[in-house]
Amino acid sequence: MANINPPDGGGSDAEHLNVRHRVARPPKEGLAKDIKSGIEEMFFHDAPLRDFKDQTASKKALLGIQAVFPIIGWAREYNLKKLRGDLISGLTIASLCIPQDIGYAKLANLDPKYGLYSSFVPPLVYAGMGSSRDIAIGPVAVVSLLIGTLCRAVIDPVDSPAEYLRLVFTATFFAGIFEAGLGFLRLGFLIDFLSHAAVVGFMGGAAITIALQQLKGFLGIKKFTKKTDVVSVMHSVFKAAHHGWNWQTILIGASFLTFILVAKFIGKKNRKLFWVPAIAPLISVIVSTFFVFITRADKQGVQIVKHIDQGINPISIGKIYFSGKYLTEGVRIGGIAGMVALTEAVAIGRTFAAMKDYQIDGNKEMIALGTMNVVGSFTSCYITTGSFSRSAVNYMAGCQTAVSNIVMAVVVALTLEFITPLFKYTPNAILAAIIISAVLGLIDIDAAVLIWKIDKLDFVACMGAFFGVIFISVEIGLLISVVISFAKILLQVTRPRTTILGKVPRTNVYRNTLQYPEALKIPGIMIIRVDSAIYFSNSNYIRERALRWLREEDEEAKAADMPAIKFVIIEMSPVTDIDTSGIHSLEELHKSLEKNQIRLILANPGPVVTEKLHVSKFAEEIGDENIFLSVGDAVAFCSPKLAEQQA
Amino acid sequence: MANINPPDGGGSDAEHLNVRHRVARPPKEGLAKDIKSGIEEMFFHDAPLRDFKDQTASKKALLGIQAVFPIIGWAREYNLKKLRGDLISGLTIASLCIPQDIGYAKLANLDPKYGLYSSFVPPLVYAGMGSSRDIAIGPVAVVSLLIGTLCRAVIDPVDSPAEYLRLVFTATFFAGIFEAGLGFLRLGFLIDFLSHAAVVGFMGGAAITIALQQLKGFLGIKKFTKKTDVVSVMHSVFKAAHHGWNWQTILIGASFLTFILVAKFIGKKNRKLFWVPAIAPLISVIVSTFFVFITRADKQGVQIVKHIDQGINPISIGKIYFSGKYLTEGVRIGGIAGMVALTEAVAIGRTFAAMKDYQIDGNKEMIALGTMNVVGSFTSCYITTGSFSRSAVNYMAGCQTAVSNIVMAVVVALTLEFITPLFKYTPNAILAAIIISAVLGLIDIDAAVLIWKIDKLDFVACMGAFFGVIFISVEIGLLISVVISFAKILLQVTRPRTTILGKVPRTNVYRNTLQYPEALKIPGIMIIRVDSAIYFSNSNYIRERALRWLREEDEEAKAADMPAIKFVIIEMSPVTDIDTSGIHSLEELHKSLEKNQIRLILANPGPVVTEKLHVSKFAEEIGDENIFLSVGDAVAFCSPKLAEQQA
Repeated sequence: MANINPPDGGGSDAEHLNVRHRVARPPKEGLAKDIKSGIEEMFFHDAPLRDFKDQTASKKALLGIQAVFPIIGWAREYNLKKLRGDLISGLTIASLCIPQDIGYAKLANLDPKYGLYSSFVPPLVYAGMGSSRDIAIGPVAVVSLLIGTLCRAVIDPVDSPAEYLRLVFTATFFAGIFEAGLGFLRLGFLIDFLSHAAVVGFMGGAAITIALQQLKGFLGIKKFTKKTDVVSVMHSVFKAAHHGWNWQTILIGASFLTFILVAKFIGKKNRKLFWVPAIAPLISVIVSTFFVFITRADKQGVQIVKHIDQGINPISIGKIYFSGKYLTEGVRIGGIAGMVALTEAVAIGRTFAAMKDYQIDGNKEMIALGTMNVVGSFTSCYITTGSFSRSAVNYMAGCQTAVSNIVMAVVVALTLEFITPLFKYTPNAILAAIIISAVLGLIDIDAAVLIWKIDKLDFVACMGAFFGVIFISVEIGLLISVVISFAKILLQVTRPRTTILGKVPRTNVYRNTLQYPEALKIPGIMIIRVDSAIYFSNSNYIRERALRWLREEDEEAKAADMPAIKFVIIEMSPVTDIDTSGIHSLEELHKSLEKNQIRLILANPGPVVTEKLHVSKFAEEIGDENIFLSVGDAVAFCSPKLAEQQA
Repeated sequence: MANINPPDGGGSDAEHLNVRHRVARPPKEGLAKDIKSGIEEMFFHDAPLRDFKDQTASKKALLGIQAVFPIIGWAREYNLKKLRGDLISGLTIASLCIPQDIGYAKLANLDPKYGLYSSFVPPLVYAGMGSSRDIAIGPVAVVSLLIGTLCRAVIDPVDSPAEYLRLVFTATFFAGIFEAGLGFLRLGFLIDFLSHAAVVGFMGGAAITIALQQLKGFLGIKKFTKKTDVVSVMHSVFKAAHHGWNWQTILIGASFLTFILVAKFIGKKNRKLFWVPAIAPLISVIVSTFFVFITRADKQGVQIVKHIDQGINPISIGKIYFSGKYLTEGVRIGGIAGMVALTEAVAIGRTFAAMKDYQIDGNKEMIALGTMNVVGSFTSCYITTGSFSRSAVNYMAGCQTAVSNIVMAVVVALTLEFITPLFKYTPNAILAAIIISAVLGLIDIDAAVLIWKIDKLDFVACMGAFFGVIFISVEIGLLISVVISFAKILLQVTRPRTTILGKVPRTNVYRNTLQYPEALKIPGIMIIRVDSAIYFSNSNYIRERALRWLREEDEEAKAADMPAIKFVIIEMSPVTDIDTSGIHSLEELHKSLEKNQIRLILANPGPVVTEKLHVSKFAEEIGDENIFLSVGDAVAFCSPKLAEQQA
């Protein structure tokens, strides 16, 4: 409850009128309530049903439908001004996505048309169900590479293209089921277990791997390794150096890559010219296609796209493997690719939501992304997610709502219906150049530098994932990221920090003596702060560390001719919880100290810990009078006793 | 550094003389030092080499040998008084272990002699290398059952006893390698990942499973299931009820079980009579053997031990599989059984060390346990560890050093050499009764009740392991324990507590308003404490939770007609570390608050966090003047501003 008393001003710590405050036991809560609040915090910490409270049944039903289809909510407030922004941004991302889609489909070992299909249906589904206003949906480079690599390991796409395609649809279906399932079961927090550092490393490594793969198209090499590691790829490239490289191809690719990169540079320098890098790829495609068509450079060995089927997505529901040996493979690949796709989409959603200050419900978002992939797998799409590069363009082009995705989808559909034959003479080198320029944006050197500065261990995780992807394979890189992320969590819980506190002069504040060298230790008293919940995973460490601190401080005191330590005060503020192992450790610590005539004192245990200290009878064991509200109180209690003992 | 100024007495918080204390950045440490201290805390937190400092080379060598063989250290101080204690306790545990060994060997599907072998060599090795003074080494029930179950799944012990035996030795060898390896690589902390609650549940379940298995011997059933789950066992028991039960067997078993349990009860009531329950099993064996020998009850269907080979351990080094298909199985089984054995031994070691207040070096202890199993596997022993029941008897009988293990080993060796033929007529029912009474002690109902009181989630883990063992199998129960233990760790790091603080009246102390209902919130200011390091696994949760607190507090303020919140103070004391994801989250929180004209203020960030806030430029972003030494300082700063705004 708030109150109106003004807080004491002027930074004074006064008014502690010799009143001894007891450490309160919180009001007792029932077991059911206890469990309920635990589950709520775990799965429903965002209180998803708060809007449903105190509403009529019909209103509740409407809110329910709106929860699944946010479009119903915002469509009513839609206006021409918003449409203008969405139209411009939709057209911009459409011009960017068409050439990217064709290239990304190749990364997944699919015909170019599947890339375009995937930019038609999924964005429409997302527009109806998603809650991000800025994300641009479609195939992305890393997930395309991942699904391409994983599926090729099972079925050869050249020998059995039909089966390969079916496997891709199966994986897409299960990726969708997996994503939607996580959201539905409110397990969205699981993706937080992939650390930022590992993701940065993985993305960077994947970007370089993808760029290297493009050397095939860029240099016009015909025989190329199927492996993705840098050693195999460079070997392929240099083996083909003498007669496998096609200079015409290189010339075309290099000129347009330069053009695209210059356009990117212009866009970076002047944010108003954001459309320059956005349409540069499409212009490159048009110009180069026209150029090849006139010069018939394809007869000189310049490889071209050749043929893209006309017409929008055919139904593919019958192609999904719901039984047989490829079912489990599909589930496995779908799970991995779905997780990566989810990580990317959620990261994008959060970033832009924070920039424009609106909320995204992670679990709802996952249901939308999952549904979009399930529907996609029924309509000849492969796995899609939010694209970093296109979402950024979408944002800069001034998109207002998910309508920009609808605009993009319509443009892609029109392209499929009418324009695809014109892509016949598009040189592969241009697609390679477009992909290279796109994935370069995934290499986030600034982030890696920041990680290095902030946390060396994080940097190791980042580099582990990076080199894992580059030198071994995408899956191994991903595995390394996951393992390192988990190892970091385990490290965090087994070795919590403990610090020795001292009194900051002229205050009653006790602080880390390493951080505040002016903070003074009090002779005969050791104040130690444990900076973590005390659980089975760290309870032994904490006990042993406390005894080691005691030994060290005692030696120091002896060397400085100070009285030996007679009181150990444990500052428990940061100890949010304790389990049976933790209580055992405290008991053992208490016994060890007692044997040496040292008194154990606890300062400021929190509500949960206080309750458990009492339930376990440990509070009785050390005596209620040895538990204090604050370190200051505890020291005030010990000091006269110390003086007595020394007298 | 300690200083001699007396601390301010009388519980007053005075003297904070309007000095604004800046939050200090800790002295910069080099990267190498940073990494070094991280590694030290992880692997060498017990400073194992501190005794080696400043010593001469020869002294160092001696200390090194002594570190591996602690016996060299304490043997010099050994005296007759200690010998007396060790002799009594050694004889007591020998009398207890001989009948137990014979029974436990059967749990492992081995001949009784292997149980006795295992109580001869390993205790001798441990006596030389171990650092616990109270642990009693030998085969134990749970590990015997575990290795029996796991090995039988690979090789049938009845069809191919020789191969089965070889597999057991192989598993023992690798269990030893595994244990010693963990200790040698200083990875001993890994066993802390098995939570106390899970161990209690697992042990209780295993005890009941073992007791149920004894119904075969106890009821004299000949055809018995090989499964260990309660349903299969009870089915076997009742199917045999009509003509498979042997009343003579039941009579003998029941009488002696009653005798042993009464003896146990007497020992519990009067601690001086600790030897009564300790020798009751041996007496039962002697009396019942004599009884069967006279009455020739074995001709009435009472099953007897029949024959135990005479002589001490033969060499078995040649029987270990170092190649072939059973090698990997041996490694796997050894790994699992080794982990369980280690958990038991370390728990025992720690318990008694705390009772007598001496230190045990967990890593060294593991090397000793591992070596003892490796040597054991060379000398026809199966996997051994510390026994709960025998260690307790050892302790109560007044053991002083590991010499009691040597005494026990000698007695066992003499038994093997001279007495084994006398066991011929020992009825199996007696062994069953002894095992039942021994494993009953593993069912720790008090611990389960305490776990229930302290932590409901821990109790779920405990019951999960318990019912997993009883209704499915030992391995599944173990798996459940491990999974739940890890899930709890993950839960702990993803959903840290956040609390709203208020001012405790007449102090300048800010505390959890739920724990201290008298603590007052300050109008216009929300003070929130984050009780955990901010890492990738929880950074999003913390940001969202903070925004939710803000929403809730604002609604409450509005309802109470209070001013809206203009300052959010985050109390950072418990935030021991932050990573890049955490900094991102703070940035996003800062942006969200800024959009609503709310000022973000940090109070008392620790050394590591302060450093990282500066390195990442976040400190600049929110402004150095918004970081305070304490919540009190921060509130004192905000209050006048609030008054201004409202004026």
